[in-house]
Amino acid sequence: MGVKFIFSNCLGVLVLNPDFSLVEAVKIKDLDADFSEWFDEEKQLVSKYSGDDLVYLGFKKEKLQGIRLSQDSDKISKLIGFLRSRRNELYSINLQRTKVGVRGSVNEDLLIIQTIDSIEEMNKVINLLSKRLREWYELYNPEFSKSVDHHDIFVNLILEKEKDELLAEVGLRNEQSMGADLSDVDLAAIKNLAEQIKLLFKLKEKEENYLESVMKVYCPNLTAIAGHLIAAKLLAHAGSLDKLAGYPSSTVQLLGAEKALFRHIKTGAKCPKYGVIFSHVLIANARHDVKGKVARALADKLSIAAKVDLFKGEFVGDGLRKGLEERFR
Amino acid sequence: MGVKFIFSNCLGVLVLNPDFSLVEAVKIKDLDADFSEWFDEEKQLVSKYSGDDLVYLGFKKEKLQGIRLSQDSDKISKLIGFLRSRRNELYSINLQRTKVGVRGSVNEDLLIIQTIDSIEEMNKVINLLSKRLREWYELYNPEFSKSVDHHDIFVNLILEKEKDELLAEVGLRNEQSMGADLSDVDLAAIKNLAEQIKLLFKLKEKEENYLESVMKVYCPNLTAIAGHLIAAKLLAHAGSLDKLAGYPSSTVQLLGAEKALFRHIKTGAKCPKYGVIFSHVLIANARHDVKGKVARALADKLSIAAKVDLFKGEFVGDGLRKGLEERFR
Repeated sequence: MGVKFIFSNCLGVLVLNPDFSLVEAVKIKDLDADFSEWFDEEKQLVSKYSGDDLVYLGFKKEKLQGIRLSQDSDKISKLIGFLRSRRNELYSINLQRTKVGVRGSVNEDLLIIQTIDSIEEMNKVINLLSKRLREWYELYNPEFSKSVDHHDIFVNLILEKEKDELLAEVGLRNEQSMGADLSDVDLAAIKNLAEQIKLLFKLKEKEENYLESVMKVYCPNLTAIAGHLIAAKLLAHAGSLDKLAGYPSSTVQLLGAEKALFRHIKTGAKCPKYGVIFSHVLIANARHDVKGKVARALADKLSIAAKVDLFKGEFVGDGLRKGLEERFR
Repeated sequence: MGVKFIFSNCLGVLVLNPDFSLVEAVKIKDLDADFSEWFDEEKQLVSKYSGDDLVYLGFKKEKLQGIRLSQDSDKISKLIGFLRSRRNELYSINLQRTKVGVRGSVNEDLLIIQTIDSIEEMNKVINLLSKRLREWYELYNPEFSKSVDHHDIFVNLILEKEKDELLAEVGLRNEQSMGADLSDVDLAAIKNLAEQIKLLFKLKEKEENYLESVMKVYCPNLTAIAGHLIAAKLLAHAGSLDKLAGYPSSTVQLLGAEKALFRHIKTGAKCPKYGVIFSHVLIANARHDVKGKVARALADKLSIAAKVDLFKGEFVGDGLRKGLEERFR
């Protein structure tokens, strides 16, 4: 502990990686001689950053643990003094390594999470703007707006058809409508908004297609069972496929229902039966009294699928899905 | 009161207009004879809804007040019985009249309020999606994203230029960036979102232009002093130009700061100095210690302008604005 403490305080987090097994340093030949017995045998030039006297110094964790302050205090203070004097170089080397690390850490997980978050925000945005569009449009033609529930159908229809035609669909003539007659300019402003919402719907579709294609390659089994949207939500809640595969199936079952779960633990309220898997077709179609059972079985298979996907096993998704479907038909 | 009470209870709100001076009814000739002394002399056929025996019956308020339950109870119960028996007809007539009323009530006020609300929602949406875009794009090119503050400039640049060019602008080469290299498909998903945001910016601009053109016709004086955005916000907070013109200037000054005002009244916290006029250029540019004074003077002129706009007076907006500008240069 003593050595570890001194190193940490001397160098901060600059040159120590989390498990403290490596120190990267700027080396001079002399130091190498003095400390050769401490350094990792596999020490190697880091070609990218090394000039003549830059060497990657690796301490093995076990070796550091073997160092005792009382016995090696001279050497340690010499090393610390050296590291301190080269602080700036250490800093920039470390920065570079971090950048490379960050760069290398971008993987499908992150892209999938961004995409599913974007899709969810797109839903929010579409809802917000559609409500505004309806409120605005209802000055002009309230009866038709009330007769259509789905925003996408509504938007398409008001862009394609005239007021008369739309009113005819709900069995009214223009003069029976409560809506005012607006000038072309006023109407154009409304239609511009509708046009935009139509494009947002298209973008959402595109994003979903993109997500599906990524998911089918990255976690085919999970996707086969849950569909790309639910699978991506699970992944986003877990943070990565790695973490998701590490969860027990009971955790997978409740991912996304954290709030209800903690309310249950704290106040003894009902325990939630499902999280984001709630909208899965098997659960949605299940009888009320077996929903929990279906959720448990589904989470079970999803948990298996996540592990298979992580370790790139054979494709078993369809089989798992069929098993579930047969059981809960 | 007695008569009024009986009528209200018999007919509900179906056939009584708020000031209780008129009753529309379905008439038969006999009734007319019995009640002719009660009916308004100006009773007239309402051509739209009247068949042969539909007559618009008008009671003058004063006449109703002259009726005493004790003296006229027979007649009243006969009238009520009659009205009750024709309830459905009364209902449909009233519905039609309400529809016409609603239709006629759509005016510039409502269109302006919808437009300014839509613009504010557009701002929200653009911010939400831009933040998402940046988070997503920063997997690819974080350094450039951090270097550009304005969302609109950012969106345009990433659509127009390649990563290399953008990195060169912040003095980096590709291999120095923390961003990962993404495949074309992954990048296309990001750019689709950027494209959408660009369109949202365009729509916002269009809506602002439309708003400006409506405002300049509907309340030119208000617009000349406050600009179309602030003027429209004032109008939306008041609910209509009619109401806005009725407010004293101190109310105009604080419109939009209701929360802070009531906190001030309830808890004795600082009184707000301005509401939506906060973003007016005169206040924004004023020294901190005179901001309140400027807000007061500005609200004063706005209040005058609203009254002039409501009563379609001569255009005085430029004069009022110049007076303010000279005073607070």
